[in-house]
Amino acid sequence: MNQITKGKQSLLFENAPYIVSAASVTGSKEAEGPLGKLFDMTSEDNLFGAQTWEEAESTMQKEACVLALGKAHVKADEIRYLFGGDLLRQGIATSMGVEALQIPMFGLYGACSTSGEALALAGMSAAAGYGEYMLAVTSSHFGSAEKEFRFPLGYASQRPLSAHWTVTGSGAFLVRAAEPERDVSTTRISHVRIAGVTVGKIVDYGLKDSQNMGACMAPAAMDTIVCNFEDMGRSEKDYDRIITGDLGYVGQSILFDLVRGKGYDIRQKHIDCGMTIFDRETQDTHAGGSGCGCAAVTLASFIIPKIESGEWKRVLFVPTGALMSTVSYNEGASVPGIAHGIVLEHCPETE
Amino acid sequence: MNQITKGKQSLLFENAPYIVSAASVTGSKEAEGPLGKLFDMTSEDNLFGAQTWEEAESTMQKEACVLALGKAHVKADEIRYLFGGDLLRQGIATSMGVEALQIPMFGLYGACSTSGEALALAGMSAAAGYGEYMLAVTSSHFGSAEKEFRFPLGYASQRPLSAHWTVTGSGAFLVRAAEPERDVSTTRISHVRIAGVTVGKIVDYGLKDSQNMGACMAPAAMDTIVCNFEDMGRSEKDYDRIITGDLGYVGQSILFDLVRGKGYDIRQKHIDCGMTIFDRETQDTHAGGSGCGCAAVTLASFIIPKIESGEWKRVLFVPTGALMSTVSYNEGASVPGIAHGIVLEHCPETE
Repeated sequence: MNQITKGKQSLLFENAPYIVSAASVTGSKEAEGPLGKLFDMTSEDNLFGAQTWEEAESTMQKEACVLALGKAHVKADEIRYLFGGDLLRQGIATSMGVEALQIPMFGLYGACSTSGEALALAGMSAAAGYGEYMLAVTSSHFGSAEKEFRFPLGYASQRPLSAHWTVTGSGAFLVRAAEPERDVSTTRISHVRIAGVTVGKIVDYGLKDSQNMGACMAPAAMDTIVCNFEDMGRSEKDYDRIITGDLGYVGQSILFDLVRGKGYDIRQKHIDCGMTIFDRETQDTHAGGSGCGCAAVTLASFIIPKIESGEWKRVLFVPTGALMSTVSYNEGASVPGIAHGIVLEHCPETE
Repeated sequence: MNQITKGKQSLLFENAPYIVSAASVTGSKEAEGPLGKLFDMTSEDNLFGAQTWEEAESTMQKEACVLALGKAHVKADEIRYLFGGDLLRQGIATSMGVEALQIPMFGLYGACSTSGEALALAGMSAAAGYGEYMLAVTSSHFGSAEKEFRFPLGYASQRPLSAHWTVTGSGAFLVRAAEPERDVSTTRISHVRIAGVTVGKIVDYGLKDSQNMGACMAPAAMDTIVCNFEDMGRSEKDYDRIITGDLGYVGQSILFDLVRGKGYDIRQKHIDCGMTIFDRETQDTHAGGSGCGCAAVTLASFIIPKIESGEWKRVLFVPTGALMSTVSYNEGASVPGIAHGIVLEHCPETE
């Protein structure tokens, strides 16, 4: 209908907003992993001074937001809207976590794709002129997620090799509207822009194994990646990296097959956050990391710095979610997937 | 920062989008209530042909969407983005409900305020030019909600007088962008516009009684209503009605007191959907109706027709949500509230 909308599901912003700062907070296992030195804050006991896993997750969200604001020297009351979510029932980690910031907020749920959903809406709101600053935040916690989806940790139940290890972490992103008339000398502007988005739809191949989320999510990742290519007239050649959220080792191989079936080959360009955040040999996380926090902290600590520096000029960031609850899979429902694509670009000059 | 943003939390759209159609689907108790004859579809056994309450809720969402589309003669593939949510853990009623429509979607969670959240984001996206049509849908189901938040129905546990009765219902709203150059002769345009929004923040007075949601949500309703007045330079005199979601009898009296404390008196203008949908004398729902579906079906069946006809020229629609889960209140956390304000206006002439 206009220059912004592209194809069926995508938007390319005329005035692409910036990610001006990002922050990552994680637990101890993540701190011991390959990205450990890149995180802004970690906790040895995974409790962050709280009494419960849920409170700990809320604390992570708050700390990630405060860090992202602090890095950009922006106060909470300068943020127009916050977009946040987590994996827990009724999104309590977010509700309790961002409460103290007193920012008008939209609660989101997209399973492990929520960081993409939050960045999409924050970018859309900033690009539309609905405010100068938007904040996007997501989190997950191994302890609260095991309790929510599987068994309390005390049961020490065994996990199949296709299972993921939920990342204890929260990533927050400060998004700023692009305005040509702004005085850039007084404010920090980054080299990272949200150039566009491809909003995902629910993709269901009928899989019912909640312990094999990689397989459940791979079709959604393929759908969003191929849709992004088609909507924007691109292919894998137009991206330096195509980075999924948490398909893991099982999901990655399925994704490669599915994408090849559509005539593309992303093998040379693909990274998966769930395979990046933990070391396969030494950390015993089976299929890899997962959770709302997995893609978020990997983006904040590892991906954004590479775009900021110009090492990567254009990245398609595709967090992936498996849509289910203990009730849905106990009632025999399948586990559909969803994935949202965020086009991140290095801009060589500030405005 | 520009003409769109107003005050701290509000937006007034330059080209206000239209709600071109709305649909309501409810259960049998709602069908027996004061609004019963206004609903588009009801089910005698509250199962809608499904085997479980959760599946029934998903079916309601799908039917509400299909009805809203059908009324406007719009196909699902003409919808750019869908904004939807429900009360169940991990939003499964929405994920499974809208899956068949194959519309790119954003999953939301704002407890019983979700219909406001969905309409706000649908309106914001349409007004920004991100697509011609957006769809907003929410639902709740008495059976699935009792299981999710309280006890399975088979326990027949007693409810305190401050407790609400979760509405079995789903409301869907088709939002269309305003475009001056459009040929109105070929398409249906309504007389109802989303003129603006006031996005709510989390308000926590420290209450911990999950069986008294009206008291937990009233402060958030006050906060959003007063913020709307101040952001837009208005008072209760500028609205024909101020309509909260599901404060019920307990919450309404608290709201009146809190609002009076801020120097406004909304008693002559206030309606609460939770008090409207059930008959207090004969239906024994204690504090009134509640749930994501309560405000949504009341808006679709009762409020929108009055704006469409011009009986009400301007309405502030304020769905209210109590942010909690069984985990959060069992761990001793308080029950904060959130409320989103939607300014709905009658426009006398189509474009």
